[in-house]
Amino acid sequence: MANKRTKAKSQEPETIAGNGLLHRRALLGNGILLAGAAATGMGASLTGAVAEPLADGPWSMKFGAVIPSYQTPSRFEKDVVRTVDNPDNLPQNGRARTPHHLLKGIITPNGLHFTICHAGVPDIDPAQHKLVIHGLVKRPLVFTLDTLARYPMTSRIGFVECGGNSAPLFSNEPLQENVQALHGLASCSEWTGVMLSTLLEETGIDPKAKWMIAEGADAPRLSRSVPVAKALDDAMIAMYQNGERIQPGQGYPMRLWLPGYEGNMNVKYLRRIKLVEEPAMTYYESRTYSQILPDGKAYRFYFLQEVKSYITDPSPGLTLNEPGYYEITGIAYSGTGRIMKVMVSADAGQSWGEAALQQPILPKAFTRFRMPWRWNGQPAVLQSRAWDESGTVQPTRADFVKVRGQTTTPPSVLAFPSQHFNAITSWAVNNKGEVRHVYA
Amino acid sequence: MANKRTKAKSQEPETIAGNGLLHRRALLGNGILLAGAAATGMGASLTGAVAEPLADGPWSMKFGAVIPSYQTPSRFEKDVVRTVDNPDNLPQNGRARTPHHLLKGIITPNGLHFTICHAGVPDIDPAQHKLVIHGLVKRPLVFTLDTLARYPMTSRIGFVECGGNSAPLFSNEPLQENVQALHGLASCSEWTGVMLSTLLEETGIDPKAKWMIAEGADAPRLSRSVPVAKALDDAMIAMYQNGERIQPGQGYPMRLWLPGYEGNMNVKYLRRIKLVEEPAMTYYESRTYSQILPDGKAYRFYFLQEVKSYITDPSPGLTLNEPGYYEITGIAYSGTGRIMKVMVSADAGQSWGEAALQQPILPKAFTRFRMPWRWNGQPAVLQSRAWDESGTVQPTRADFVKVRGQTTTPPSVLAFPSQHFNAITSWAVNNKGEVRHVYA
Repeated sequence: MANKRTKAKSQEPETIAGNGLLHRRALLGNGILLAGAAATGMGASLTGAVAEPLADGPWSMKFGAVIPSYQTPSRFEKDVVRTVDNPDNLPQNGRARTPHHLLKGIITPNGLHFTICHAGVPDIDPAQHKLVIHGLVKRPLVFTLDTLARYPMTSRIGFVECGGNSAPLFSNEPLQENVQALHGLASCSEWTGVMLSTLLEETGIDPKAKWMIAEGADAPRLSRSVPVAKALDDAMIAMYQNGERIQPGQGYPMRLWLPGYEGNMNVKYLRRIKLVEEPAMTYYESRTYSQILPDGKAYRFYFLQEVKSYITDPSPGLTLNEPGYYEITGIAYSGTGRIMKVMVSADAGQSWGEAALQQPILPKAFTRFRMPWRWNGQPAVLQSRAWDESGTVQPTRADFVKVRGQTTTPPSVLAFPSQHFNAITSWAVNNKGEVRHVYA
Repeated sequence: MANKRTKAKSQEPETIAGNGLLHRRALLGNGILLAGAAATGMGASLTGAVAEPLADGPWSMKFGAVIPSYQTPSRFEKDVVRTVDNPDNLPQNGRARTPHHLLKGIITPNGLHFTICHAGVPDIDPAQHKLVIHGLVKRPLVFTLDTLARYPMTSRIGFVECGGNSAPLFSNEPLQENVQALHGLASCSEWTGVMLSTLLEETGIDPKAKWMIAEGADAPRLSRSVPVAKALDDAMIAMYQNGERIQPGQGYPMRLWLPGYEGNMNVKYLRRIKLVEEPAMTYYESRTYSQILPDGKAYRFYFLQEVKSYITDPSPGLTLNEPGYYEITGIAYSGTGRIMKVMVSADAGQSWGEAALQQPILPKAFTRFRMPWRWNGQPAVLQSRAWDESGTVQPTRADFVKVRGQTTTPPSVLAFPSQHFNAITSWAVNNKGEVRHVYA
């Protein structure tokens, strides 16, 4: 081992792209990882003496707290929370954003899943809640939670993302916000429920039915039109989230989950599905969730959340304290299917290295990517770019803005483009290790 | 569609085993699923009129609650909690068990992960916590959370199970308890952290080192001996659980995770790893976690949690309200690797049908199985039996007891066998639809 260590000190690790991006095999057997770990003060002794740093903390000297029936994070994690933009519960919508910069893995814990509620969080009694499927069906039916519990269920890990997630990046100047504020309206869970196709098997479908209108039970009764083809593909009546009943913010006691489709279509507090011939052009789909383009025209519908990625660490607020080794990590996902590749750059896109993707890589789910990086203490611009299995690539911001516009084109409030931003995000690291949002 | 429905009524669904176990294709296109769903009262009208059952609840008529920064389940789910066996925090160990009968999927939500604490839940300040690796290493090192944050991380979904989980099934009579009481000391999460092999690459390993002693920072300073081979295989210093920092009950701020090895070896509040030549024969491994056999001898060590499965629904406390279709579902897992097959019986093992396994099937992780069942209202005995990818099969209770004994053999308190029960669990359904624990 001594030889190996000595050898490592005399070698530069193998790089795969500019500004310090490392090949993963550079980390194997080269002893180059040392990232601020301290010696124990015992030298390299093999005596096995008790290490000095192991002074007992107060928690080592006394009996701990009672075990609670439902556990919650340590009090030292009190800042790992969602940012809530309507804390006084004013009569308007409100959002809570996931703190991506403080999370690892692909599962969003239930406490921190993003939510948007248009009229607060309803307090629904599950014993009184019903789901009706009617309209162009052979046999209209009413389902309670008890009856749904007897149907075959499916579990699937996947994301939900608001169509307006990342909207701040339409701004013509980069807003100085962190990844939670910029991209926090996306989360990923294991959802369990009954496939909608199973229930439509029960009701039968009139061949004239091409659309369905899904409606929620909360006060806004948000409704959206969904193609029947999606209903028969992979739509789920989700009742469980990471094993337990779904949270009130995610639609308790049941929601429509349309894997890969924009968040508001995944109607929460779902109480009705009506099969129809034409889309209903409901309030939310006609006004709120239409995407206006630079030429003043609008997409009629824009269901898909397209391929996207962003680096969560380093990111604004997470400072690099000294030059040396770091892991660049983030999440990638696509409403089309699996993530195939994520490339990372540390020099604003001049050169790119392929990131490692954490297994399992699941369709329409968060995929975590990782890239070893040796920061030399000089300025750097970090970017990630994802490809999905359809071959679709995440656009550069310049290419995206050409098609979709930004806040100044056209200069109209009504035309403010705010939906389906999926271009590259750039983080600049300065020579103090501070991270800022930039356009690059 | 009318024809299909009529046809279905005149056909018996295809069975694959006795007492009503159905082939999954029996559910496709046969309209046989109807599980108590009610007609809307609108007849089979195609008019698309608003369904009568959609009377507004109070939650549809008013603005909801404020969105919290950290969300928790609905108040209507207040009974979906862990059962805590030391609620007065007496100076002894305590357990909290996962309510498997009320959960679906493979992820255990963080609030409901099982825990065992030998001296309450410690309140550790992560800024003061350190991990020392010393003993037979080239370079003893101290790691803080900040330094560990810079190392390459890995995420993996997998289970942790107490070696004493399912101990009540050693009883010579079937205890009348539910699946939470019988099997609730096992849970499954996405864990994220640094591979221990990465840190040992940093410290170097003296070739004489064959074992390591892992020690916790809470008051009992629980320590266990672990083969270095496991440390270099898939051991992780886990710091995140389902995305967020691990819970105080699971070892905040860091634990050793040894995928597939018995729970207490996955030392929580990990503060020290000392590499040594021989196992330490610590208090917990010598006294508490030795497995005594009917002949009075004991296994010196029994690390592996072997292949196991149990049905979570139906299970005691979940009553079948009427004859008809149900989904039998449960979880299977093995410390050896992936689950390959789960067979289900509804006639106490006289005949078996192969259950569907929910994808993704991950090694050393919960795998959910599902089996459609038409209950005819008569008594039935439900069982599940799992095979893992090594070809190992879950034993029958009779075969298991022959080798491992039960509470009466030998009749000594010291010899009470209480570890590593993994035989088949049997649930009897009576003609009222009530479910009881039986030996069959």
